[in-house]
Amino acid sequence: MADPRFYDNRGPLTLQAIAELAGATIANDNGASARDVASLDRAGPGQVAFCDTLKMRDVLSRTAASIIIVSRDVADAAPAGAAMLISDRPALAFAKTAAALYPYPSLFWRLGEPPLLPLHPSARIGAGAVVAPGVQIGAGVEIGRNCVIAPGAVIGRGVQIGHDAFIGPYVSISHALIGDRVHIHGGTRIGQDGFGYIGGARGHFKIPQLGRVIIQDDVEIGANSCIDRGALTDTVIGEGTKIDNLVHIGHNTLIGRHCILAAEVGLSGSIELGDFVVLAGQVGVADHLRIGTGAQVAAKAGVTGDLAGGQVYGGFPAKPIGQWRREMGAVSLMAKGKLRRNVSGSAKD
Amino acid sequence: MADPRFYDNRGPLTLQAIAELAGATIANDNGASARDVASLDRAGPGQVAFCDTLKMRDVLSRTAASIIIVSRDVADAAPAGAAMLISDRPALAFAKTAAALYPYPSLFWRLGEPPLLPLHPSARIGAGAVVAPGVQIGAGVEIGRNCVIAPGAVIGRGVQIGHDAFIGPYVSISHALIGDRVHIHGGTRIGQDGFGYIGGARGHFKIPQLGRVIIQDDVEIGANSCIDRGALTDTVIGEGTKIDNLVHIGHNTLIGRHCILAAEVGLSGSIELGDFVVLAGQVGVADHLRIGTGAQVAAKAGVTGDLAGGQVYGGFPAKPIGQWRREMGAVSLMAKGKLRRNVSGSAKD
Amino acid sequence: MADPRFYDNRGPLTLQAIAELAGATIANDNGASARDVASLDRAGPGQVAFCDTLKMRDVLSRTAASIIIVSRDVADAAPAGAAMLISDRPALAFAKTAAALYPYPSLFWRLGEPPLLPLHPSARIGAGAVVAPGVQIGAGVEIGRNCVIAPGAVIGRGVQIGHDAFIGPYVSISHALIGDRVHIHGGTRIGQDGFGYIGGARGHFKIPQLGRVIIQDDVEIGANSCIDRGALTDTVIGEGTKIDNLVHIGHNTLIGRHCILAAEVGLSGSIELGDFVVLAGQVGVADHLRIGTGAQVAAKAGVTGDLAGGQVYGGFPAKPIGQWRREMGAVSLMAKGKLRRNVSGSAKD
Repeated sequence: MADPRFYDNRGPLTLQAIAELAGATIANDNGASARDVASLDRAGPGQVAFCDTLKMRDVLSRTAASIIIVSRDVADAAPAGAAMLISDRPALAFAKTAAALYPYPSLFWRLGEPPLLPLHPSARIGAGAVVAPGVQIGAGVEIGRNCVIAPGAVIGRGVQIGHDAFIGPYVSISHALIGDRVHIHGGTRIGQDGFGYIGGARGHFKIPQLGRVIIQDDVEIGANSCIDRGALTDTVIGEGTKIDNLVHIGHNTLIGRHCILAAEVGLSGSIELGDFVVLAGQVGVADHLRIGTGAQVAAKAGVTGDLAGGQVYGGFPAKPIGQWRREMGAVSLMAKGKLRRNVSGSAKD
Repeated sequence: MADPRFYDNRGPLTLQAIAELAGATIANDNGASARDVASLDRAGPGQVAFCDTLKMRDVLSRTAASIIIVSRDVADAAPAGAAMLISDRPALAFAKTAAALYPYPSLFWRLGEPPLLPLHPSARIGAGAVVAPGVQIGAGVEIGRNCVIAPGAVIGRGVQIGHDAFIGPYVSISHALIGDRVHIHGGTRIGQDGFGYIGGARGHFKIPQLGRVIIQDDVEIGANSCIDRGALTDTVIGEGTKIDNLVHIGHNTLIGRHCILAAEVGLSGSIELGDFVVLAGQVGVADHLRIGTGAQVAAKAGVTGDLAGGQVYGGFPAKPIGQWRREMGAVSLMAKGKLRRNVSGSAKD
Repeated sequence: MADPRFYDNRGPLTLQAIAELAGATIANDNGASARDVASLDRAGPGQVAFCDTLKMRDVLSRTAASIIIVSRDVADAAPAGAAMLISDRPALAFAKTAAALYPYPSLFWRLGEPPLLPLHPSARIGAGAVVAPGVQIGAGVEIGRNCVIAPGAVIGRGVQIGHDAFIGPYVSISHALIGDRVHIHGGTRIGQDGFGYIGGARGHFKIPQLGRVIIQDDVEIGANSCIDRGALTDTVIGEGTKIDNLVHIGHNTLIGRHCILAAEVGLSGSIELGDFVVLAGQVGVADHLRIGTGAQVAAKAGVTGDLAGGQVYGGFPAKPIGQWRREMGAVSLMAKGKLRRNVSGSAKD
């Protein structure tokens, strides 16, 4: 279930209601209703999940979801007795269901209550903490001892920050749990929506982003960086990891401990970094990749496949750096050689 | 004419005054004066335009501008009877004229009035809209029904926002007209000056940026992105387009409907994108290019020429992705082969 | 000494105290104490410096530092009589000493005093300056005549801004001295910590950043850019230089006069640019490099070595642009030729 500290649930919805809002057909009506959404492998009672690919047939056959939205070709694999909806576009139907259950996922405060205040009465600030003028702190926020919250920082409802943290000017934080001694520089954005849509001929439908950002102890994050929260799971920044300015970290990404991410790095989403990974400036990493512990990636590289740990990579697509250097050297030699051939060639002609 | 909702005009200026401030010579004095500037092809009565290239002779011969600043070599093509100034550097003279007519183009409020307020008395907020503490809203602003304006958003004079929009924390918006259901995440900057200068041996003179940003319905823009307003025309983001975090969109760029721009994309300026264009992460596009409807550009590509629609591109310079992959594969093979040749070569020597 | 307008010194520390906090061994105790840290070549009386490489033996032998932290292998080169500490990790010991002398280097105000205010009583604002609501201005700040400070700008203690400057909405500035007619667009971050750590098997120790940012006259900086302050020296932006949106400038970087840095450029750190250098969009520059006056670097290039002035470069690694274009052309031809060979080859087989 989406963390109730950050999200207001509007469920339950009946199978009939979901069929209507999602434009799906009821295939098996057992009177079920649902309060929540989850991925097929994690869904349990009271939750809606979906399946639209034959590759997930096995997972589908074992799901404990109360309501399943499926495409016609996988319907026969669903557990007997589960409430089932048939849709031409199960992912879209699922996203519409999620949007109905959690209609205001981007809000920093509870809908219907006043927006943030300099300090919401239910927020708790630890001893020795300094909160500058212009700061806004939402309901249920907890800030630890000796924190410094610089001017204009906005801390959304339910956010927890450990001890001895520094939150820079005009940082905004929502949907996040943050550890001790975390240092976040000015203008950085933590916890906004991930960039997830279901495309179609008439446009793109936003997939509600219902996860969180977890930032462990001793993390430092530079200025004007962006860390999106997860979609159905969490975005996690491991202990001691240091992140420079203008870095983008997409939803569901898991970063290990003591990593270094230099300025202008971009991690698209659902990426897994081991510990002590180093990404140099302007590196980009495609989605759903794994980079092993201790791997180092040279500046400007584009990572398009999994990278084993303990090695140094470079280039685009990223490869072992020695190979990349040989390739660049070979190109350089070829270009010189080619010019000579052209000259002699035209002399002969 | 620069939109008076956003710009205060200090005209009219006499031909004589313009000649003096611009360091130009009067070639044809018909007593004209001007209140405004425009590009040569769009200028009409009361406006100043310039021409400094033989390529524009035809346009120059047909211009309806009241005052034309020209280089000596194109002067003969000007319409007979038009007030004319001769300059060694017509673009610089034109920029100085624009700067005199619109001396404070970057301001979020009207000069001489108090700066923004939590809510300027002349601003109108629609029913059901929620405006958080710390928001500042300028003169003449209109915000539609059921909008949510998060803490610290700054909405400059004259800005219009449609219904059901979400404006995130510490977003700043100026010189912009924004549609319904637009969603702008924290820290994004809309409407600041484009990056336009006229260079010279003693430095760079800023070209006043006098256009607007138009954001159509159902656009979503991620956190800490930047969309500059146009110089003499507008920057436009088409309906349903989705833009991720840390994206830069330069002045005068026209983006079609339902495009996807992933994180850290950079569009330099005066670019035209068709509908349903997809630019993956960290793509860069050089200025004055066109990318056709449905084109997709792979991550990190650098677009240096027009791209036809409906195809997939990659690499730098960007080319059809199959070609780019063959090239990368060929380089890889060559580097391996080359090493073998070197080894056998040194064995023979 | 770190500029007392920005940093509070907690010294002096005795040799014994430094040995304890840094985990170092006293090799020569002459009763010295120190109030400050400095680089080996600049250190003088009352300052701590370190040396951990044989390459710096000559500098070490001439240093005027009162206390030197050295690795065992260079200890014999130290001046006779200097107080000396032996450490396995002199850089780490030095960073710990700096952290003890300057414990809150990131603060925008003096510790123990109230945080920023709309206008600190000791700040001075020039005639004709306009300060918008929501601005916070720290102790000792000086702002010149006719400046415009847009909503929500935060100006930390001791910052000086010249005449006729424009500071955009939600800009934050600390540890900085800024000239006349400087124009800084919304959300830009000036003066935060550089990205400097000493790595180790158990994580990364932050090197206190004790320098400043110097921005000379007539500089313009786009929106959401980041300029880090120096570590032991300053980051400097030369007169008339124009910087676009989302640019990262790392610590200790020196930029000359009238340079142009387009959007999304990244300068890692300790880089030196001459005058009139042009870096196009998304260019990256590795640390400790020099780029000569008048050099131009094409978009997306990655600079990995010094570049002579007056030439145009492109590619990654950046090279003269003609060479890069020949290489790209050669790759393109090879890929086409290779395909033909493969086809004919398989026909023969």
